[in-house]
Amino acid sequence: MTLSVLVSKLEICQNQKEFEIKGINTLADATEDEISFFDNEKYLSSLKNTKAGAVFIREKFASHLPAESSAIICDDPYLSMANASKYFAKGLIRITDKRNIAKSATIQEGVSIGNGVKIGEDVTILAGAFIGEDVTIGEGSVIHPNVTIYNDTIIGKHCIIHAGAVIGSDGFGYAHTNEGTCVKIHHNGKVVLEDNVEIGANSTVDRAVFGKTLIKEGTKIDNLVQVGHNVEIGEHCIIVSQAGISGSTTLGKNVMMGGQSAVAGHIKVGDRAVIAARGGVTKSIKGGETYSGYPLLKHKDWLKLQAKILKFFKNK
Amino acid sequence: MTLSVLVSKLEICQNQKEFEIKGINTLADATEDEISFFDNEKYLSSLKNTKAGAVFIREKFASHLPAESSAIICDDPYLSMANASKYFAKGLIRITDKRNIAKSATIQEGVSIGNGVKIGEDVTILAGAFIGEDVTIGEGSVIHPNVTIYNDTIIGKHCIIHAGAVIGSDGFGYAHTNEGTCVKIHHNGKVVLEDNVEIGANSTVDRAVFGKTLIKEGTKIDNLVQVGHNVEIGEHCIIVSQAGISGSTTLGKNVMMGGQSAVAGHIKVGDRAVIAARGGVTKSIKGGETYSGYPLLKHKDWLKLQAKILKFFKNK
Amino acid sequence: MTLSVLVSKLEICQNQKEFEIKGINTLADATEDEISFFDNEKYLSSLKNTKAGAVFIREKFASHLPAESSAIICDDPYLSMANASKYFAKGLIRITDKRNIAKSATIQEGVSIGNGVKIGEDVTILAGAFIGEDVTIGEGSVIHPNVTIYNDTIIGKHCIIHAGAVIGSDGFGYAHTNEGTCVKIHHNGKVVLEDNVEIGANSTVDRAVFGKTLIKEGTKIDNLVQVGHNVEIGEHCIIVSQAGISGSTTLGKNVMMGGQSAVAGHIKVGDRAVIAARGGVTKSIKGGETYSGYPLLKHKDWLKLQAKILKFFKNK
Repeated sequence: MTLSVLVSKLEICQNQKEFEIKGINTLADATEDEISFFDNEKYLSSLKNTKAGAVFIREKFASHLPAESSAIICDDPYLSMANASKYFAKGLIRITDKRNIAKSATIQEGVSIGNGVKIGEDVTILAGAFIGEDVTIGEGSVIHPNVTIYNDTIIGKHCIIHAGAVIGSDGFGYAHTNEGTCVKIHHNGKVVLEDNVEIGANSTVDRAVFGKTLIKEGTKIDNLVQVGHNVEIGEHCIIVSQAGISGSTTLGKNVMMGGQSAVAGHIKVGDRAVIAARGGVTKSIKGGETYSGYPLLKHKDWLKLQAKILKFFKNK
Repeated sequence: MTLSVLVSKLEICQNQKEFEIKGINTLADATEDEISFFDNEKYLSSLKNTKAGAVFIREKFASHLPAESSAIICDDPYLSMANASKYFAKGLIRITDKRNIAKSATIQEGVSIGNGVKIGEDVTILAGAFIGEDVTIGEGSVIHPNVTIYNDTIIGKHCIIHAGAVIGSDGFGYAHTNEGTCVKIHHNGKVVLEDNVEIGANSTVDRAVFGKTLIKEGTKIDNLVQVGHNVEIGEHCIIVSQAGISGSTTLGKNVMMGGQSAVAGHIKVGDRAVIAARGGVTKSIKGGETYSGYPLLKHKDWLKLQAKILKFFKNK
Repeated sequence: MTLSVLVSKLEICQNQKEFEIKGINTLADATEDEISFFDNEKYLSSLKNTKAGAVFIREKFASHLPAESSAIICDDPYLSMANASKYFAKGLIRITDKRNIAKSATIQEGVSIGNGVKIGEDVTILAGAFIGEDVTIGEGSVIHPNVTIYNDTIIGKHCIIHAGAVIGSDGFGYAHTNEGTCVKIHHNGKVVLEDNVEIGANSTVDRAVFGKTLIKEGTKIDNLVQVGHNVEIGEHCIIVSQAGISGSTTLGKNVMMGGQSAVAGHIKVGDRAVIAARGGVTKSIKGGETYSGYPLLKHKDWLKLQAKILKFFKNK
């Protein structure tokens, strides 16, 4: 779709350039054939350095755009981006290149295999699994029954995906109109699991809005865990059951999250941090420490605080 | 089943009337061809005004029944209702009217479609989805792989149900015998999703015990969320991952529930209330405010309290 | 596999005996044709009394082994056990005895039934369910759509497994190398559900590492609940939605766990204990009491403490 066609569909105003738009991306990652949006002054330096071909932007900020980038003036850039996103969603059902499935792979009857799928040597896929369009599964991986792998997901070698897990579902992102209704942001990114990743039963890993949700080598995730869109989890992490990781958060290497713990969105957790069961992380934390509680404290401090509270109020 | 046959099966005592029972319902909603139960004095005014044809009731309260309603005297009305419920459960597998599926619908191979199902124009249903008996799916809705839609569910137009979600599973309700064993209350109600509702991957929405669990227009629900039986969620709500809503609770319009938050059963949350992540709501709350914590406080008060606690105990 | 072959594969040192190893088990439960491991001085008395044919053990503890038991000297017994576990995993797909399915069972099209499966009278299995190898399902049980029953699971009579539930997935257990990578402990145990158990939609019950995860007669589990490996749940318990039970924990009879509550691993909860919603149990607790909070208190004490905290800090 060209820029002029898009802006006419969205009924907003375009300043300059015409080009064929390849997709939507962040200010930092967009290339000259992509569009982006500026909605938060926190990202002003990204705006000044963006390579995006055009940017949804309020009029008063348009002067900060690099000369090569075209302003798409609008009242609500986030909403405009959401409205635009549907035009760049690939079809749910596609007619793509033919499948490439290794002869040594074992695929039970009752598996649904999409178009364009690549399946490596010695992969095992059990009945009821759904492998979407253009999915890649690396050698030796095992996909258990009733797993759903959404379109475009890339799974490394020797991964194990337990029954009922969902990889690549839409992230939870909406813009709001003035009237309070939600406009879906189509999540046109993907999920990438590196080698030796294990995902527990009925856990969910959302696809990225742009780019990818990434789980690195050797990380193990237990049952009923939620991994939000655009999360990045480092190597060899351990994420225990019913933990949740909100969108766009980054975990370092060898991070341990206990059961029912949670990390808020858009923050960083350092290498070898340990978040005890039920810990709730709302700000970026350094690695190499153990944390507990909500609000979060260092584990020892949390234990002391709880003991002090009990003692102080005992005879009040 | 007639009333006299039912009371003989349950080995309890019936006072007066004979009629063909159509079902079980609450005191407030039951019609003259339905039965109900009275187990909680809180509902005495409902008892006095019920239109139910007959009511399971302890002997001492029977005098409060309207003249048109027959008392079914028993020691444990809730248990008797539970015992009766199984006689009014429709079959899991039915022989009903023929299906009505729009030609423009896309239904992948490996979808199971029940009897009596109605599927609207441009609906897409991906492989591994299960569409139970007498389900209705409105135009343009998308049902992702391995979704289970239980019997009798009604899904509006342009809804999206993500992979692994379960809509219409039995609510979690049991009566207890004196010996402590659980007697299942058969949930003979249904789930209704209005238009433009989105349900996240592996979330669960339970059917009503009587009547319906209702999610209104435009509400968006993230992954791994639990919605209990007979819950009503207003228009354009946002329910983030791993939140839980207990049975018979009502949320107003534009309510926002953060990740891992929860609302107890049988309460009301007002329009535009925001429940922050981890917030635990145990009493009805007014709309238009932001709440946090467990026990729940207004968000600002919770932040202040946590800061005060930390400061006060720092040097104790 | 013989002991000498195993130790050569693991490149560790074996002292004495040679025998055909039937499997791995705990020190307490291992028989003379099984091997075990000693990694925690807490279990010294189990070591002294073990009947295991051979035991992975550090050199300095080897003298405590009974004479009949052979020491397999190694630096990290837990890691060696993990490395050994894969040699005793049964195949995911097996060629076993023929199936034994009662004629009165109703099995919808689109169900996957493994080898060696036994299905009792009047069982109903709906489309999309996966019944693994050597599974047993007792008379009158109902398996809803898209349920996954892993290999070797035993399900009693009149059980109900709701849609999307996963029974028998691998427990979450890993040993760590010095470099911080995870070595999977293959879970070669099973899950046993006794009669009249109900498992909610999208709940997960992990198989045991050795022996069995056991849910006893009449227990009812709601949606999105996690039951870890080697958990034992007593008769007639009620486990509400989004609760989590960590590995190797034992619940007594008639225990009640509220929504989003949790119990840590390797502890005991007494008969008729009630854990209120959100309660977090980290130590063994006596039965017959109601508990709340995290850290856990008796419910009344928790209510009082919360009230005192609010009052004390109100005007600070």
